[in-house]
Amino acid sequence: MPKKKSKIKRPKAITPKGFRDYFDEDVVNRQGLIESICEIYELYGFEILESSAVETVGALGKFLPDVDRPNQGIFSWQDEENEWLALRYDLTAPLARVYAQHRNDLPVPYRRYSFGPVWRNEKPGPGRFKQFYQCDADTIGAHSTVSDSEMCTMLASIFETIGFSKDQYTIHLNNRKILDGVLEEIGILNNSDSDRYKETRGIVLRSIDKIDRLGHRGVRDLLGLGRLDDSGDVTEGAMLSENQIDLIMKFISLNESSNKRTLEELQYLVGKSSIGLLGIKELELIVELTEAAGYLEDRIKINPGIVRGLGYYTGPVFEADLNMKALNSDSTSSEIGSVAGGGRYDDLVKRFTGQEVPATGLSIGIDRLGFALNQLDKKQETKRNGPVIVTIMDMEKILEYQKIVIELRSSGIRAELFLGNPKDLGKQLKYADQRNSKLAIIAGSQEFEKGNVQIKDLELGSRISSTIKTNQEWKGQPAQTEVSRNDLVEHIKKLIIT
Amino acid sequence: MPKKKSKIKRPKAITPKGFRDYFDEDVVNRQGLIESICEIYELYGFEILESSAVETVGALGKFLPDVDRPNQGIFSWQDEENEWLALRYDLTAPLARVYAQHRNDLPVPYRRYSFGPVWRNEKPGPGRFKQFYQCDADTIGAHSTVSDSEMCTMLASIFETIGFSKDQYTIHLNNRKILDGVLEEIGILNNSDSDRYKETRGIVLRSIDKIDRLGHRGVRDLLGLGRLDDSGDVTEGAMLSENQIDLIMKFISLNESSNKRTLEELQYLVGKSSIGLLGIKELELIVELTEAAGYLEDRIKINPGIVRGLGYYTGPVFEADLNMKALNSDSTSSEIGSVAGGGRYDDLVKRFTGQEVPATGLSIGIDRLGFALNQLDKKQETKRNGPVIVTIMDMEKILEYQKIVIELRSSGIRAELFLGNPKDLGKQLKYADQRNSKLAIIAGSQEFEKGNVQIKDLELGSRISSTIKTNQEWKGQPAQTEVSRNDLVEHIKKLIIT
Repeated sequence: MPKKKSKIKRPKAITPKGFRDYFDEDVVNRQGLIESICEIYELYGFEILESSAVETVGALGKFLPDVDRPNQGIFSWQDEENEWLALRYDLTAPLARVYAQHRNDLPVPYRRYSFGPVWRNEKPGPGRFKQFYQCDADTIGAHSTVSDSEMCTMLASIFETIGFSKDQYTIHLNNRKILDGVLEEIGILNNSDSDRYKETRGIVLRSIDKIDRLGHRGVRDLLGLGRLDDSGDVTEGAMLSENQIDLIMKFISLNESSNKRTLEELQYLVGKSSIGLLGIKELELIVELTEAAGYLEDRIKINPGIVRGLGYYTGPVFEADLNMKALNSDSTSSEIGSVAGGGRYDDLVKRFTGQEVPATGLSIGIDRLGFALNQLDKKQETKRNGPVIVTIMDMEKILEYQKIVIELRSSGIRAELFLGNPKDLGKQLKYADQRNSKLAIIAGSQEFEKGNVQIKDLELGSRISSTIKTNQEWKGQPAQTEVSRNDLVEHIKKLIIT
Repeated sequence: MPKKKSKIKRPKAITPKGFRDYFDEDVVNRQGLIESICEIYELYGFEILESSAVETVGALGKFLPDVDRPNQGIFSWQDEENEWLALRYDLTAPLARVYAQHRNDLPVPYRRYSFGPVWRNEKPGPGRFKQFYQCDADTIGAHSTVSDSEMCTMLASIFETIGFSKDQYTIHLNNRKILDGVLEEIGILNNSDSDRYKETRGIVLRSIDKIDRLGHRGVRDLLGLGRLDDSGDVTEGAMLSENQIDLIMKFISLNESSNKRTLEELQYLVGKSSIGLLGIKELELIVELTEAAGYLEDRIKINPGIVRGLGYYTGPVFEADLNMKALNSDSTSSEIGSVAGGGRYDDLVKRFTGQEVPATGLSIGIDRLGFALNQLDKKQETKRNGPVIVTIMDMEKILEYQKIVIELRSSGIRAELFLGNPKDLGKQLKYADQRNSKLAIIAGSQEFEKGNVQIKDLELGSRISSTIKTNQEWKGQPAQTEVSRNDLVEHIKKLIIT
């Protein structure tokens, strides 16, 4: 039945808060970056997987740092059958689901890479959006620390392939097992009752992860009674004693001159904790392998302050920082910081299957890495060349113009007919300028009679083209050549190449 | 505060209903198809845009065919500020939003292409998923029918570039304006009061769009009193008279031997309706241009039965069918049908701005097109070659194995260390088989002493490899050569190429 018409209110033409669109060069550059990274993943033997962007909330689990707020941090909704669905917040949790679902058909180890958008319902900031790209590689089903080492060398090799020099990045390496050793030493981890103090350990982990933002004083507060931030929000503390806090702070502040010395100091801190000692042994092997692969401690460096915020890590973890500043639009500069990270997550598949499945992986934040590459001046912000524009002087001749554009395209030349209002040649040439087109083709009745066309070189003529107002004025301009219609494609080819 | 632990229930390792994952070859093939199409869009002068996957519900509007169920058909949720957000259901509605938002910075016309997943909360079926890929091109700001014509020729050129022959596809062309002319003739469209009978016209449109599924009888019912389907659901009818229905049925059933004759018949059906006559004139120009471009009526054919379900079209519309059957898994076959379509939507940007902005576009359904291409036997389902697998006989020699894999990769050879449990060589070789690897490298203490390694050709040896059980048995197998460690890379290069 026809309903009563409600008053029409115009929708707002905006992206939702924290989302954005990507135009031409942005997309092309990002695709190029992803392609370069995926080529290396391929070279290392990984194969591609694209999992569904939508998952059940249960399958995703709650591993985002802000576990205080369940179901926050993700975009979720209920379907018709009351099941909670959500957009993936990373590519790792979905991989665990995929592996558990298809494990009988997949090789062991299963080595896959993946790229695509992920979504986080977090507060957006400068350069931080709610939809962003990740490009990951993971090895599922490999216990061996060799696979963790591979992640580190592969990441280093990616940096150096896409254009960073050896001193422009550092991969900070740590092991959750060593932190566990420290926690065992201070009495908040008990092997025989792993659930005891679990909440406290969660707070410790998240506190350490905030050191870049809050500094040592802030982390100490969080390890103790808690912290009141500038906005008046209270963050609950881990309620540890001063002695306990001292040991943790000593651990995360270790900054020795060499990986060897750091490993010696760590040995001292974990005492007799067997989990801690195992963690140190693993790091020793990673250091041996990565150094043998040519990546010394100037690039892969043990840093006990790195714990990674995500809740699912169980062993070696790493985070890659770029040692360069980014120029902000207000001409201040700020650290670019972490652009990639990863680690071992042996229990993530077990959530589904009950059986332990070892796994390790690497995740690259494409948007920040692309931003850093732009800053490097290696990829200067150049506008892509636009197509050859075939202008229209006379709609009666539309078939002739169409023929020109077809011929150009048949020769592989990017070209288009001007499809806006053709009344004004100046506007057509301005359009060609806006598209960053190098050439425009102009032909009126005079040219058609002679069997000729005009080629306008817009690069040469860009300064004056904006002053052309009428169809009459364009004649006799410099950077404009009349050629035989029959030779047009050959002429254009030559001009495009030079 | 620590909370009481609730009993742990394992999450199910499944995609939400109607979603799926794409493995290696699937993703590679799809990427290749998208790349081929985008190359043509580029050649035609379009530039790329990637809009946000998430939009406000208001910006998307309600244009899906099933407008009877508002907010159905899409995945939507409310954010913290009570705004309704949704996943895009196509790439056209977001484009209208992007254009309205950024119109001051964009050239006129704005010619963009785009590809990516879209999401529809519709009933999934065989080959129909809730997340699927579209690859679109649109021209915004062009009144000219030449731009509609370009969409048709570009689509034809895409089909012929990606591997279809001239007789394997048909582009069916129509014009909503001609339908409007018919509706004017039967008295349910009134120029001076365009909102009158709007609901009725909506029902007419959706009824015609269902002709493939319901046949003539079903459409007649929907144009009249309504229809009771097998499940007992009642679909409301347009309540037209028999005379009115007859004229519509005559219109949509027109099937003349040539475009010229169809245009003549249409002239008769629209009578004196000026909108109808304008529509016919536009089709005449499209036919003239596409024929001049070499696409005759065997490939671009006027078909008044094509109206397109989406509510936003206002002028020329087209739909591309593949004239081939798909073999189902139960060895029955079914028509593949429509894989692409598009048309003119002059009012979509106006929703935001109030100003008319002409627009026309083309959307290709990548998943169905890819499926059809597979059926063509042109892209046979071949498993991609896996990497060279460097097996591990002795963990003490891990640095040596790593060195081999580094050397191979440095020479551009896809290679990986076996990272699973290395105890059993047979399992390592089985893994290489599963990855479809052509070569495996084997070296134990004997080989290392001699400065040699073994290269196993798995293609040759695939039949016997599955029977190898212990590390001792592999020796002296055929298809296995011992070479000097120093010459390894050269040997592998030769074997990979042949």
